[in-house]
Amino acid sequence: MTEETLQLALERDAKMTEHALLRYYPAEDADLKSLLNAERYSLFAGGKRIRPALTLEFCRMFGGRDEAALPFACAVEMIHTYSLIHDDLPCMDNDDLRRGKPTNHKVFGEAVALLAGDSLLTGAFEAAATNTAVTAEIAAVAVAYLASSAGRYGMVGGQIMDMEGECRRLSPEELLKLHSLKTGALIGAACVLGALAAGVPLQDPSMEKVVAYAEKIGLAFQIVDDILDRTGDEQTLGKRTGVDSEHEKTTFLSFYDVEEAQYYADRLTAEAIDAIRGFPDSETLAALAKWLAERKK
Amino acid sequence: MTEETLQLALERDAKMTEHALLRYYPAEDADLKSLLNAERYSLFAGGKRIRPALTLEFCRMFGGRDEAALPFACAVEMIHTYSLIHDDLPCMDNDDLRRGKPTNHKVFGEAVALLAGDSLLTGAFEAAATNTAVTAEIAAVAVAYLASSAGRYGMVGGQIMDMEGECRRLSPEELLKLHSLKTGALIGAACVLGALAAGVPLQDPSMEKVVAYAEKIGLAFQIVDDILDRTGDEQTLGKRTGVDSEHEKTTFLSFYDVEEAQYYADRLTAEAIDAIRGFPDSETLAALAKWLAERKK
Repeated sequence: MTEETLQLALERDAKMTEHALLRYYPAEDADLKSLLNAERYSLFAGGKRIRPALTLEFCRMFGGRDEAALPFACAVEMIHTYSLIHDDLPCMDNDDLRRGKPTNHKVFGEAVALLAGDSLLTGAFEAAATNTAVTAEIAAVAVAYLASSAGRYGMVGGQIMDMEGECRRLSPEELLKLHSLKTGALIGAACVLGALAAGVPLQDPSMEKVVAYAEKIGLAFQIVDDILDRTGDEQTLGKRTGVDSEHEKTTFLSFYDVEEAQYYADRLTAEAIDAIRGFPDSETLAALAKWLAERKK
Repeated sequence: MTEETLQLALERDAKMTEHALLRYYPAEDADLKSLLNAERYSLFAGGKRIRPALTLEFCRMFGGRDEAALPFACAVEMIHTYSLIHDDLPCMDNDDLRRGKPTNHKVFGEAVALLAGDSLLTGAFEAAATNTAVTAEIAAVAVAYLASSAGRYGMVGGQIMDMEGECRRLSPEELLKLHSLKTGALIGAACVLGALAAGVPLQDPSMEKVVAYAEKIGLAFQIVDDILDRTGDEQTLGKRTGVDSEHEKTTFLSFYDVEEAQYYADRLTAEAIDAIRGFPDSETLAALAKWLAERKK
């Protein structure tokens, strides 16, 4: 698959997701204006929509319908967005800029940003639970998997490790665990929920391949993130670079030089592609993995 | 039912809930220590456990089993607890004391408190979705109802109205809407999830009675809260009083004197009891409504 074909597929997935996301804001309400605006500000701030694309593409690869995958794709994107809003808050990373725009609390104030994050997190589970294109069994399993991936033994756990790890040098094992929780778990949920939407049971052997793909691209994604923070261009990235070394934060570049790190990311990507090679129509997911490892922003 | 019998029932419900809540922390993990401790600090800070009691008692009234109600009761209490943690944060109410103890962020810091709240909210939906004592249909409906009650058109919406209403005088209609969202919606979910656990479908005519009871006790609860803020004793309440008038916040006492407000709360309580009078074994819920309106803390 050419880079151009992949980009067209991703654009289509992003448009579908954005269209579907708007459906979760059925009623305007003057009393809730700032909350709804704050949520939509971050939800439509031009994210790459990689997670919802993974959900949609995994569902398609297993022969499922887009209607079944979309509510799950939206749920995953809402959780990703809430985590960015809360991460940017002054008591966390205290970031002013995200995707080239002022962060949520810079525009709406801290209290509204906090509540907008809470609301997006809550809305994610409503979206997943009310997925009428799948059985109630699948919806309940999806909610449970998503919550487990996003919660204390998943993404939030990774955020705690990230925050508390800032004051000291982490071991390679700790760094791997941190990222597997902080970014890997939600990427894993995005992929697994896509397969669930297509009717693949959680216990099906295919699910192991899905999880392997997710783990490997999740880690590769983070390694490339670290590389871009060192070598990337602020204008292109839409955020400040060099932040990690400023904070003396442990990154993959604490253990590897840029070339070794890129080699590591490429190897993981090859393994991810290998994991799904046996499935028909896995080209888009293979191309997506490759693009993520080679991306410049 | 005597006050003493009610208190014994509530204590039993609270113990069952607390025992069940601990099951959601199966693994200690040194890397997540502060997160897990922060969550449990607030979860076991001696709340009155009114919401889980409502879930359990409604399930029993409709002939359901405690095992079916407990995961839902825990989910509701987790959401209640998260909302208190986030409400107390400096960017929100900036409270130092809650239930006579330092607030979560005073003990664990703002970032950990923020994440502990996020984790409790996420964990609530995992608890509800993994309720194996009910069908997947019921679990999915419960998650959706709970999320809708806690989210943008529910509790979080009420928090926004509360915050933005602090700067100006609200109309009686606005005040009613605020409280119906901020406290009423989650109390409603507590009651409805109890009935769901017993197998009562959401469309069943009985559910209207459940919702009517919940709305009325929710409002009465808030009116009594306002009265106690004016007349209550700090030592007994475990928090500062007179805060509302300090902030020139609109409360029910902006429109009624204490006696009128108590009369209003009592009338709502009588209506709540009327709503469930037709069901057998509604004595505990009737006594609970009465006690809430007469409570001194």
